[in-house]
Order: sequence, then C-alpha cells, then structure tokens
Amino acid sequence: MTREQRQQAVALIQQALPELEWTLQSAKIKRLSRDFHWFSPVLNQQLEGKQADAVVRPRDEEELRQLVAACVQQQLPLILRGSATGNYGQLVPLEGGILVEMTALNRICELKNGTVRAQAGIRLAEIEDATRPTGWELRCMPSTFRLASLGGLYCGGFGGIGSINYGPLAAPGNVLSVKVMTVEASPRVLTIPAPQALLLHHAYGSNGIILEVELALAPVHRWIERLDVFDDFADALNYANECLRSPGFVKRQLALLAAPIPAYFSHLKGHYRAGQHAVISVIAEESEGLCAGLVPKHRGENAIRQSGDEARENHASLMEYCWNHTTLHALKIDNTLTYLQTAFNYQHFPEQILQMEQRFAGEVISHIEFLRDNDGNITASGLQLVRYSTEERLNEIMQIFRDNDIKINNPHVFQVEDGKQGIIRPDVVAVKKYIDPDGLLNPGKLRGWALRDQLVLDNNPLSLTDK
Amino acid sequence: MTREQRQQAVALIQQALPELEWTLQSAKIKRLSRDFHWFSPVLNQQLEGKQADAVVRPRDEEELRQLVAACVQQQLPLILRGSATGNYGQLVPLEGGILVEMTALNRICELKNGTVRAQAGIRLAEIEDATRPTGWELRCMPSTFRLASLGGLYCGGFGGIGSINYGPLAAPGNVLSVKVMTVEASPRVLTIPAPQALLLHHAYGSNGIILEVELALAPVHRWIERLDVFDDFADALNYANECLRSPGFVKRQLALLAAPIPAYFSHLKGHYRAGQHAVISVIAEESEGLCAGLVPKHRGENAIRQSGDEARENHASLMEYCWNHTTLHALKIDNTLTYLQTAFNYQHFPEQILQMEQRFAGEVISHIEFLRDNDGNITASGLQLVRYSTEERLNEIMQIFRDNDIKINNPHVFQVEDGKQGIIRPDVVAVKKYIDPDGLLNPGKLRGWALRDQLVLDNNPLSLTDK
Repeated sequence: MTREQRQQAVALIQQALPELEWTLQSAKIKRLSRDFHWFSPVLNQQLEGKQADAVVRPRDEEELRQLVAACVQQQLPLILRGSATGNYGQLVPLEGGILVEMTALNRICELKNGTVRAQAGIRLAEIEDATRPTGWELRCMPSTFRLASLGGLYCGGFGGIGSINYGPLAAPGNVLSVKVMTVEASPRVLTIPAPQALLLHHAYGSNGIILEVELALAPVHRWIERLDVFDDFADALNYANECLRSPGFVKRQLALLAAPIPAYFSHLKGHYRAGQHAVISVIAEESEGLCAGLVPKHRGENAIRQSGDEARENHASLMEYCWNHTTLHALKIDNTLTYLQTAFNYQHFPEQILQMEQRFAGEVISHIEFLRDNDGNITASGLQLVRYSTEERLNEIMQIFRDNDIKINNPHVFQVEDGKQGIIRPDVVAVKKYIDPDGLLNPGKLRGWALRDQLVLDNNPLSLTDK
Repeated sequence: MTREQRQQAVALIQQALPELEWTLQSAKIKRLSRDFHWFSPVLNQQLEGKQADAVVRPRDEEELRQLVAACVQQQLPLILRGSATGNYGQLVPLEGGILVEMTALNRICELKNGTVRAQAGIRLAEIEDATRPTGWELRCMPSTFRLASLGGLYCGGFGGIGSINYGPLAAPGNVLSVKVMTVEASPRVLTIPAPQALLLHHAYGSNGIILEVELALAPVHRWIERLDVFDDFADALNYANECLRSPGFVKRQLALLAAPIPAYFSHLKGHYRAGQHAVISVIAEESEGLCAGLVPKHRGENAIRQSGDEARENHASLMEYCWNHTTLHALKIDNTLTYLQTAFNYQHFPEQILQMEQRFAGEVISHIEFLRDNDGNITASGLQLVRYSTEERLNEIMQIFRDNDIKINNPHVFQVEDGKQGIIRPDVVAVKKYIDPDGLLNPGKLRGWALRDQLVLDNNPLSLTDK
C-alpha cells in the first residue's frame, strides 16, 4: 500500500467514524510513533522516519471494534500503542497505518484474592494502587511501572522488578488469561487461558489485540529501598550474591551497578563518592536486619535508605534506577552509550560477571539484575552499558559474550524473532493467522509471517473449544 | 552423680521450692521422658530406660530462674521439654536430672509487621492462630505444628512445611533473635541476635535455655491442599518437579510419596487405589489453575482437594501426612519399618530419586520432600521408609546413598554432632561453656563438650557487647 492509498483509506475511515478521537497533525503523529528504541543507535537509524498515518484513541471496546472493522475493510495496518516505554520499536509503524492509543481502555475489570484482571491500557502503577489496599501487588513489572501499560508489558515486556521471586512474566502461573479482539471484518472477542495465552506474549501486538490481561499477584510487603555502595566491584558482587542466595532474605529487587553508573544518577550522586559501585535492593522490612551485618562484612556502606511508602509519596523510587531506567539515566548524561541484554549461566554467573567486568574494563560497564529463570533457578541477567563506537564493534562484543557462555538477547533489533523469542515459532505465526488473517497488525515485526506458507501451522493454535 | 545422689538433690530442691509444679510419680516421669525416637529401632534400644528423676513445669520465667539456680547449686542436670515431638531423643535424659516442661511459657510476646516473638513453650499452631488474622504465618514448621513447641523446633527442628520457599529455619533471615537463660548460680537472661542466635539452634537445648524466639513470618495465602495420584512413579516425580520448578506456581509444601506409602494412610486411602503414588501439595488459590493442565499432562488424577480453612476446621490437614508424619502413619500400620533422612544433590536430584527408587525397590520406599537449601537452590530431601532387618543392613543402605552422592543425615543417633551438625563445632561448644559452664544442660548430647579442653574456644562466642 502506498502512502497515498493509506491516506485515502484513513480519510474513508475517518468519514465513516468521525466520532472517534482522531489525531492527524503530522508532528503529533510522529511523536506518538516513537518509543524508547533510541537507546539503540542501531534501531534509531533503522526506524528513522517510520510513523503512522493517523492516531486514534478509542474510548471503549465498541469504538475499538468499529475501528478494527473499518481497517479490515480498507486493509489498513493497525499498530497498538500503550505508554510507549518499550525499547525495541515495538510500536513504531513500519508500513504506516493507524496507531491505536489504548490508554482509555484502563479499567480494572475484576479484583479477586490474589488475582487481577484489567484492561490493556491501564498503567501498572494504577493496578497496584487498586490492589495494594487489598494486600496484593504485581509479581513482576518493569522499572517504567509508573507509565508503562499492562498491554505494553504483555506484548513487549519481560518481567523485571519482582522477577527475583516469580521469574519472568512468562513463567507458568504469572499470567492466567488474556482477552483478545480478532482483526476480521466482524471482530470477535476471545478469552484465552494460559498457557495458550502466552502465544500472544512478547509478540509486539502482531498476533492479536490484547484487550485485557488477568494476572496472579504477589502479597504486599512493607518494602525498604536501599542503595549500598562499595569501593571494590567484587565486594559489591559478593554482597549482592549473598542477599540473592539467602532464601530467608525477602526481596523484590536486586541490582548491581558498576562504577561509573551510580555517578550518572544526577539526583542521587550526592550520597556517595564517584568511582563507587552500588547495589540497589528492595527488601522486606522484616529482612532488613540482615543488612546491618552483611553490608560491613563486604566492606560496603549504606548511602540511601527509604521506605516504599516514602518512595511512592515522593515519586522517587530507587526501582526507577534499575532495569532499563539505569540505561535511561546514563544516556541522559552520556549519549555515546548504548547497552546489551545478556543472560548469564545460572551455574556460575558470579564468576562470569567478574570476568566480563574485568575483560571490558571501561568499554562495557556491568549492570546486573538478579532474578529467577523459568525453571526457578537463581541467576543473573545483564543490561550492560556499552561505549558505542561502531555497529561492527557492538556485534563483536556481543559475540565475545556468547563465546563465554553468556546468552545475548539482542536489543538492537526490531523483529520479534531476533530478540527474546530467538527463533521463528510456527505456533506464534499460527495465532496471527487465526486472529489476524490479513496480516494487518503491526506488519513487518513478526518475521515468521512472511514465511507462513512454508510453515506447518495449526488451524486451532489456541485450542479454543468454544469460539 | 549416682541415682541416689540425684534423688537426694531433687528432694532438697523440692524442699526449697515446694510451690513449683512437681511430677514425681515414676510412671509419669517415664512417659514424659520419651519423644518420638521410637521411629528408630536403633535409638529405641539405646535410649531404653533413660529417664528423669523428676519433672517440673515452671509457670513463669521467675519459677524457671529459681529452679535453674537450685539445680546449679545441687549440680543436678536439667533437660528441657517442649511437646516431645522430636525424633532423635533430644529430650531423653541420659544422666537423669530434672525434666523441665516448658509448656506454661506459651505467651506471644510481640507481634509486629512480619515478625513474631513468642515464648519457647508455645505450640506452633497457636502462633499461627495469633498471626494469621494479621496476614502472616510461619515460614517453616514441622508436620507436627499442632503439637510441636517453638522451643522444640528451635532446638531440634530443621524446617519442613514452607522450607520450599524459605529454606531451612537456619537460613539467614528466618530467625531474628533468641532470649536465653544461663545456667549459673545467678541465672542471667541474654538477648542474642542472629546470626549468633543460630549457635543455639539444633543443639537439643544443650547449650542454653531458650526462653523466647523471634521469627520472621511469611505472608498468608489462601492455601489449597491437594493429593494427586499417579500409576507410575516417574510420572508423579515429573509432576512434582514441574510444580517445584515453576517460580510462578506459589506453594507452601510439596511431597512425593511412592507406593505403598499412600496405602498406609488409613483415613485417606479410600480416595485412591492401592499401588498408586501420591503427590501432596499445598498451593496458593491463585496458582491452582495450573494443576488442571499439569496433573493430566503427567497422567495423574486428583484424589483429595480441600481448602486450608476446611483442613483447619476439621483438624485434617494433608500437611499432617508429610515430613515425619508420613513415617508415623506408616509405622502405625507396619512397625517393622524405619526411615532415612537424606539430602539429594540440587544439580541432579530427579535422576537420583528415580535411581534410588528403582535400586531398592521395596526395601527403601521413596518419600521425597522438596525445598530450598541454604543457598536458595531448589532441591529435594528424603525421609525414605526402610524395611528394617538389621542395624548393619541399615548402615549399608545409608552407605549406598552416600556412595551415590546423596547425603545422609542419620536419624538413628542421639548426639547433636552425629545428626545434622555433622562435626564437632567449637563455636557451639563455646556457647555451652559460656552459658552452662558446669555442663548441666542435657548432658551427654553434645559430644564436643567432653572434648572442650582440646578445642580452641572463643571466650565471647555470642559477641555480646553488653552482657
């Protein structure tokens, strides 16, 4: 479809559905067509100039249904937008079309004992505002929880804060079901239980319109947020590892930040010396007594300490210095930096971390996040900062990590399969064929779609008995 | 001290403290001097005829203080008794003396957010009755929680239910502090924080009189208790392992019971066929949806399902069929059985479990409990049932386990060092010297005490700055 054909289609849809909330000014559309993929100089270049032809913000499911039906009629691409906090250009329209802002679909649908079902456009922090008084909070969420939407997390997220207990969002038991709208002339609404629901997870909204997500929750603790500093990287690592290992040490978040990362935190750096390494931890009040012994044991000292309540009141949580917020704070200070996403081997990650920190001294700066993997193993992942020189050197660095048995989840790619999924998955493609037979959702992101005729696809990939 | 000397000493103490609650009838003393060490034919023989000279039940700390002072004056041994649910003869007086029933010291002293401090004589279930309404429960407890005392758990327990999340009781963060009375002419009361507090853990009350224990708690969940059955042992193992591994599958207890163990459960066996293997699980309500897929996947079926509330109301928790309750139920039916205590290797426990079940078919029956170890690794321990023939064969079986890289925690020994501690620990002995310089507490149980002159002992093993 040429740009002109698309604009004609938009005009027709707008004529048919004038009551929808349309955004048509090019500058606004351009701004709304971007997320945080600019963390990657590679993606920044590749996705330059890509934008939607129009933005629509449906006020409810019915408006969304009308829009979807109209897009199908016009065969116009549809791309879903949450809060645009993603890092892989998941919302950037590669072939134009209508960008659908989901932020008005932000209702909590059902809150039960230990579970919540909410609409895709709700912000994660708003979910917690509703669940916390009932004694529950999210099991895992990104550092962007204040802005990030539930649908965005589901379609492009991984886990993050809390994954140290519950593993990735995709670990069995965390997601209970999703409600999805099909992209057909008469859009249908399907409720898909786990585990099939996971076929729509981390697919960048390319194989279904997520309307609602039902999550299992975690019991609330009174959290204490700490930033402890160490002069020696190995000390900081050993401290973090001891916190990590102790099953009686209850925590929600644990990150290790090599120097000079803590110095990039403009609002915090007055609390410690340049050159110090930091461990950020969010630990249960009843576990904090352990720190009094552990921090000095590893020659560290406490620099910042606040309660979770204080953090929320002041909009100044240390969790917003972890995961990809770390990258954001660093890039604000030094825009020659970019980053990696790595997964260490659970059997010897402390040695690997130390080895890589020493090997790349200065060029790759350790930012380590601790978590459980899908099999419940305690392990570590990295969001290392890299002093970017060339794409070639970046690829070389990633290869060295791979050669040392450290997995790379390349954040410098915009296609689903090149990042976390790793391979073309026929079951994921089959879901797209089932839900979005014309391939209108976020075209260009699911590489397997172009190969669908060469794949053996299940006709009923969601095993739905009652459609 | 001869029996006559001891009885003379008892008479003098009784004269001095007539207001105490004394038990002097020999039959009663004999009954109170026993615990569940009869699970072991070896211990049953070794400890036969061992009993106290008198039993006293102090009504408060002051009465206890008077009794201790009097025993020191008379140099008479003192042995503490909780609810006598131990399995290693920890309360059996080897050299007579006064058995001190701690059951009247059963007060909750302090209940805070996520922590509780209670007196040693309180039953574990009573602690939970108090904490549950505030949203908290015990992190780990034995299957004898309805009877077992806090002090007994601390001095002879290991963990149990809940250790699948929090590891053993000894894992850092689970115990916060203990309050201890010294055994001196003028008994002192010391508050000992963790980690030093752990020096008095699992020492059978031989190195200090535990008055209070302060524990960190776990958030309450609405638990569902299930017993699922499988025709094939490997299926049952694989089901249990999948439940175990999933970090998003929230559980409190998980046990695998090979046939014919489930058939020993008189009150349950109507729910399944003889010859079936069972997995008992206690899982969070919000996680139960997973079972609907997992159980049939492993060719199992649900036999029993009840909520935690129902279990409590009916005094019929499936948790009372796990850990050493399993052994109890089996011995009630077949008293030729005894048992092992084993710790599998966390890196390949599923293979080890299968291998041992096959190797000893019939002679050693798999009873596997899943848990986290001190380093947070997911692993398995065994309380295998053994068809007892001779002590020699029992030792041979244990050696075969050791030869297959499966650790044995021998439950057929009554000395502290021969069981869980494994070695003579100078720091544990130093605590006894500091708190009980005359060696009056539970004499004969701490093997290192006899060797104290050959050990290098710290003069201030508890690192107490303010005595």
